[in-house]
Amino acid sequence: MRSSAAARPQSSPAQAGCARLLATCPDRSGIVAAVSGFLHQRGVNIIHSDQHSTDPEGGRFFMRQEFYLPGLEESIDALARDFGREVAERYQMSWRVVLSGRKKRVAVLVSRLDHALMDLLWRVGRGELHAEIPLVISNHPDLRPAVESFGVDFHHVHVPEALDASRGRSLSVPEEKMLELLEGQPGGPVETLVLARYMRILSPAFVKRFPQRIINIHHSFLPAFEGADPYRRASERGVKLIGATAHYVTGRLDKGPIIEQDVIRVSHRHRLDELKILGRDIERQVLSRAVRWHLEDRVLVDGNKTIVFA
Amino acid sequence: MRSSAAARPQSSPAQAGCARLLATCPDRSGIVAAVSGFLHQRGVNIIHSDQHSTDPEGGRFFMRQEFYLPGLEESIDALARDFGREVAERYQMSWRVVLSGRKKRVAVLVSRLDHALMDLLWRVGRGELHAEIPLVISNHPDLRPAVESFGVDFHHVHVPEALDASRGRSLSVPEEKMLELLEGQPGGPVETLVLARYMRILSPAFVKRFPQRIINIHHSFLPAFEGADPYRRASERGVKLIGATAHYVTGRLDKGPIIEQDVIRVSHRHRLDELKILGRDIERQVLSRAVRWHLEDRVLVDGNKTIVFA
Amino acid sequence: MRSSAAARPQSSPAQAGCARLLATCPDRSGIVAAVSGFLHQRGVNIIHSDQHSTDPEGGRFFMRQEFYLPGLEESIDALARDFGREVAERYQMSWRVVLSGRKKRVAVLVSRLDHALMDLLWRVGRGELHAEIPLVISNHPDLRPAVESFGVDFHHVHVPEALDASRGRSLSVPEEKMLELLEGQPGGPVETLVLARYMRILSPAFVKRFPQRIINIHHSFLPAFEGADPYRRASERGVKLIGATAHYVTGRLDKGPIIEQDVIRVSHRHRLDELKILGRDIERQVLSRAVRWHLEDRVLVDGNKTIVFA
Amino acid sequence: MRSSAAARPQSSPAQAGCARLLATCPDRSGIVAAVSGFLHQRGVNIIHSDQHSTDPEGGRFFMRQEFYLPGLEESIDALARDFGREVAERYQMSWRVVLSGRKKRVAVLVSRLDHALMDLLWRVGRGELHAEIPLVISNHPDLRPAVESFGVDFHHVHVPEALDASRGRSLSVPEEKMLELLEGQPGGPVETLVLARYMRILSPAFVKRFPQRIINIHHSFLPAFEGADPYRRASERGVKLIGATAHYVTGRLDKGPIIEQDVIRVSHRHRLDELKILGRDIERQVLSRAVRWHLEDRVLVDGNKTIVFA
Repeated sequence: MRSSAAARPQSSPAQAGCARLLATCPDRSGIVAAVSGFLHQRGVNIIHSDQHSTDPEGGRFFMRQEFYLPGLEESIDALARDFGREVAERYQMSWRVVLSGRKKRVAVLVSRLDHALMDLLWRVGRGELHAEIPLVISNHPDLRPAVESFGVDFHHVHVPEALDASRGRSLSVPEEKMLELLEGQPGGPVETLVLARYMRILSPAFVKRFPQRIINIHHSFLPAFEGADPYRRASERGVKLIGATAHYVTGRLDKGPIIEQDVIRVSHRHRLDELKILGRDIERQVLSRAVRWHLEDRVLVDGNKTIVFA
Repeated sequence: MRSSAAARPQSSPAQAGCARLLATCPDRSGIVAAVSGFLHQRGVNIIHSDQHSTDPEGGRFFMRQEFYLPGLEESIDALARDFGREVAERYQMSWRVVLSGRKKRVAVLVSRLDHALMDLLWRVGRGELHAEIPLVISNHPDLRPAVESFGVDFHHVHVPEALDASRGRSLSVPEEKMLELLEGQPGGPVETLVLARYMRILSPAFVKRFPQRIINIHHSFLPAFEGADPYRRASERGVKLIGATAHYVTGRLDKGPIIEQDVIRVSHRHRLDELKILGRDIERQVLSRAVRWHLEDRVLVDGNKTIVFA
Repeated sequence: MRSSAAARPQSSPAQAGCARLLATCPDRSGIVAAVSGFLHQRGVNIIHSDQHSTDPEGGRFFMRQEFYLPGLEESIDALARDFGREVAERYQMSWRVVLSGRKKRVAVLVSRLDHALMDLLWRVGRGELHAEIPLVISNHPDLRPAVESFGVDFHHVHVPEALDASRGRSLSVPEEKMLELLEGQPGGPVETLVLARYMRILSPAFVKRFPQRIINIHHSFLPAFEGADPYRRASERGVKLIGATAHYVTGRLDKGPIIEQDVIRVSHRHRLDELKILGRDIERQVLSRAVRWHLEDRVLVDGNKTIVFA
Repeated sequence: MRSSAAARPQSSPAQAGCARLLATCPDRSGIVAAVSGFLHQRGVNIIHSDQHSTDPEGGRFFMRQEFYLPGLEESIDALARDFGREVAERYQMSWRVVLSGRKKRVAVLVSRLDHALMDLLWRVGRGELHAEIPLVISNHPDLRPAVESFGVDFHHVHVPEALDASRGRSLSVPEEKMLELLEGQPGGPVETLVLARYMRILSPAFVKRFPQRIINIHHSFLPAFEGADPYRRASERGVKLIGATAHYVTGRLDKGPIIEQDVIRVSHRHRLDELKILGRDIERQVLSRAVRWHLEDRVLVDGNKTIVFA
């Protein structure tokens, strides 16, 4: 699709000088004061700030701050180094600082169903999703023309179905090929993978390369209907709502931390093929929300749950 | 709560002369023509009509018709007899005709949580639910005063927890006592049971006495979190929506035909106790909708699914 | 976007021999019996049937029946003629019979925002919407490449803004040009217009040519925020939900019969530009549902309201 | 209703030592650092923290912090005094500090419809709403027994309908009587008023006494259907969703800052009386959410909008 006037990003605030600080540590008194004091001393203006304590006594503390400092692009490395020394160490933080203007590099993995993929490409094209998609990988050749019409590279990597079962500790041959593609991009390695109805299972060895950076859309309201063919099973069970779930992929199928879920009402009138059509809409929306939050560094992982500062 | 002026039924249309015809049979051509022709010949005016075919070829046909005939209260038996002979037999129908004005007699079974029970008593008192509740049975004595303040009999039937496991083919002693209460009411036997967070499991032998006439509210979005403690498990899984499900009770725990479901959005901020409070609201609404549809004969059962002509 | 394998219609039941009967008339006893009797005599199998009475006493009756008859494509004219004589006349019906397999011809009018248009083209391409879109008309040239990439004709018809005010009884010059395009299509005239964020007002004279056949998407929850700039006004009023409304266009701006509405939750955190992005998703869904129902002849108009047999 | 075991508050965290700081001021750099630094120096542990900037450049800053300090009940006055001197003055803050454990004193004003009132009394009784309701005032005597069954005082203050029009600058006679009741309670004056379908209009003079402390539930999705009889008008307009809105009362009818809104789906099948019944459920939920957020000091007013830190 062509980038028309209307398709220009409408929501990007001027992001020069903006960054995000993400941090988590054991909860204790004084963290907010230490962080905000540090930033204030350096002339930083905090634009947004979110915190969460899992348990005021003995839990973990999670924080996301959006801040602004003229010329931050130049000084961010020094700022980060100082923050590490002066604050993060004292509180045993896991943390990172990310320039808001920098687009994350994302690859989409897909099979033959194109609705979730098209929606992502469309939203990236419109500026709704602040990302760069250098390539799409599929185990089928079918979607090549659709992908290339967006000016995005398409790679067909054949994955025999039997490989699904290979839950081994090493990469499969197709996974090695994919990894090569993902890491060998001219613009730099890909950071985030989105499985937009990708019908193959990735090995734990592969998943481990992208911790909390592979987002899958599952076409059910998890934990209901984990695994194959959820719409058929929903139809057979006679549920009155069908759903979709976006989650980070871990080594355990459909068990990773849930980022977003939603549902849509159905009735006895809907045949299985109609459930699938209705489901597409909810899949698209759930996935696009989850991807957006991930791209904006709004999702922090706490064990097998997520904290979403949306 | 007292029945105040404001609590008087505001929605009861004049129901004298109104009835509902429910029917299901193997699908074939001519059923609607036969039924509507039969009714028209007798001067009946059809007010609402709903049909559903599970599959145009070789499926089942389901029908609900609301109709009106002056003086129907007198002539309904003759009408039903003729319908049986002239229509139902020919199409191998399971069917019934029910006067709309007649209130179903309902008993509520409850343990210690009162929110779903109170909501039902309240709605019945206001005329939102067209039912008579002659009694409430509980395995705890706690809710007696609350129930009696509605002018409803309260019976405490102790059920030892161990009995839960007794999945036997015969009634337990407490179940025998309950059955006695349900069948021995002065105003006639109770037809419908509502389990409003009743924390004991009924034996298959007991359930068999009330086929498609026991409604349970389960505090999860089934089939997710079947069984005990769904809110805790939902919290641990990190779901982003919690739900409730009203279903007919069968011999298989939490597996019966689903009548209604709904969900409410939650986030990482909600502690377990807050999930429970939020869940109460959705339980109440789901249960009250399911009970209303049941009372208005809008729910037909098709295998393990429901058809809801809402 | 190209029509890939995955985009092939998945939901079209074999529609050969299927048709829909739409009818409305003053309510009285015997209508259903007469219609279903007529159809049964001709060997027709009723697949779905919906009725509605606005008021059992002195109201109007509305009916939609989906039925099946082998070879109906040949016999439909005779069937319709007989129905008119034997049934419709007696009950003073407004009615029509439509072959289910026949695709309605739809034109989309658009200005510069492309999201609603793209969604429609996409869904038609995938077979989700059973329509033919021979052309798109816009008062801006911008979207030509995007439209043509779907293989759809694009026509730029300049409409000066001043014409908005011309609420005259005759067609404006641009409207005459549009009418020529709509009626002069090689495949036959266009029946339905969809205004997918078309920012010009059509004259009553133009609207009269397409009674109940112009669908507009308005970006608010009508009747709130009729007229211009609803998102800005929603933001200023501080509403907690924003919405969209699809309605038939009449001579009175944003006052026509509502087909579908929906809303999405927002908060103080959302700036105006973010409301617009969130709103796009709800506009797309509301419009696509309304268009689908229209294409499937599920929408009947009763004064300034709709009856939707969804 | 009696307070049964099940009805005991399940969600009150141990609130001893907990307080909330609410503040708003012109936005500038360093506020968070100043506030959190101040609190940290005094050994305070911040449990939750929410901020909002209406506009990073030249807008307003809003903040809510929940914090904990052993023995705070004793030291809160000194803490507040110091905060005022050391922080609030410098940033020109409007602010307050409130002990979390302290229950707000609330009066409910009602006419004859009891659903919203009963729901509030019920939730307060269960501990879902952390409030004290010393009295209910009504312009009808009907609900006295229902209210008194909760152990709450009921006062009938007759308000002639004609007074609605008196939009004068002085209190009406009935308003003077109400004010006397509200201020003369033995346990101390009432702070918050909830209009639970109170069908009289309060004068600007009366409203001014309770700035941002009168919550009204309006039975429509504002700004649609401001004023009288919204369900009838919704029915006539043929909307597909009906709604309810809770807002702070100002001198302009139905124009005050919106706290919460929600909607429920309806169709052509719903008669006006059914809309009213469905509407009750959504009114109850919207009102109870708004009241809860108000009681927990989660609602800040920004001009004619609210910021809800929910």
